[in-house]
Amino acid sequence: MNFNVKEAIEILERTPHTLESFLVGISNDWLQCNEGEGTWNASEVIEHLIEGEKNNWIPRLKFILQEGESKPFPVFDRFSHLTNSKVRTIEEALRDFKALRSENIKKLTSLLDSEQKLEVTGYHPAFGLVKIRELVSTWVVHDLTHISQIVRVMANRYNNDVGPWIKYLGILNRNR
Amino acid sequence: MNFNVKEAIEILERTPHTLESFLVGISNDWLQCNEGEGTWNASEVIEHLIEGEKNNWIPRLKFILQEGESKPFPVFDRFSHLTNSKVRTIEEALRDFKALRSENIKKLTSLLDSEQKLEVTGYHPAFGLVKIRELVSTWVVHDLTHISQIVRVMANRYNNDVGPWIKYLGILNRNR
Repeated sequence: MNFNVKEAIEILERTPHTLESFLVGISNDWLQCNEGEGTWNASEVIEHLIEGEKNNWIPRLKFILQEGESKPFPVFDRFSHLTNSKVRTIEEALRDFKALRSENIKKLTSLLDSEQKLEVTGYHPAFGLVKIRELVSTWVVHDLTHISQIVRVMANRYNNDVGPWIKYLGILNRNR
Repeated sequence: MNFNVKEAIEILERTPHTLESFLVGISNDWLQCNEGEGTWNASEVIEHLIEGEKNNWIPRLKFILQEGESKPFPVFDRFSHLTNSKVRTIEEALRDFKALRSENIKKLTSLLDSEQKLEVTGYHPAFGLVKIRELVSTWVVHDLTHISQIVRVMANRYNNDVGPWIKYLGILNRNR
């Protein structure tokens, strides 16, 4: 086990800034490309991260602290951001994400005011018993998953452009 | 085909800044973790990117423009950064990378002073004929590959910490 709260927060606080450095000012063709029908482009991934800030991580953490294992916490709709047709720039979306994340890190620090809180268990609707430390670890890996996804989707845009070098580029072969 | 020089440069110029936002000030445990023997940690990936700036992309581009298909360009040692035991912080390495990249983007723009240059062919030691547009596309995807690699390596550090959520986290299952 490698998790600790301080190092987890190091990732959580870097994600919005990292995505800003990567995406602000970039051409629309990079932002709008996806991997085919039913897959997400960079803008949709950002909206999904925002949904998580609003309805997933901190609300679930609070729910577990209040209810323990007594009742399953509400299901999080991982596709809800696709039904709200947001018309806003990536800059606006990232600003929103950054503000929400910053607030949520404050809430996280205040809710986890003792080491023991990490061991508190809740009831996941699909998995059954889960610990708060697993929820917070998942929040971190979820960030990393979606940074990686955005990068991969953009790399795939040049799938046919790299010619024979495709052999050396793991990301396009999806084997790494 | 999606490649164009302007959009390629958008990625090339963002990579150092993105990695800075993600890595500067982070704990050593994040920087030093890898995926087992023979795999690279984040610091090693940065050193590899620096090697590419010095000995791969622009030198090959110049070589193709000078020699065309007449002789194969020199082999680039993809592991050379592992033999130079660099003792420097990630901040120093990223500063170096940023400076080299900035210089190389200027060289790229100056070398590619006409659209036709993109179609010039060189002779790759393993692949045979390759075009300059393929080399530059590969430079872009190479950046994305290694950003994605750093993110994946760090995600894997929490492989055992996420508990049952591992099922939902593609990056840990390596299936996306």
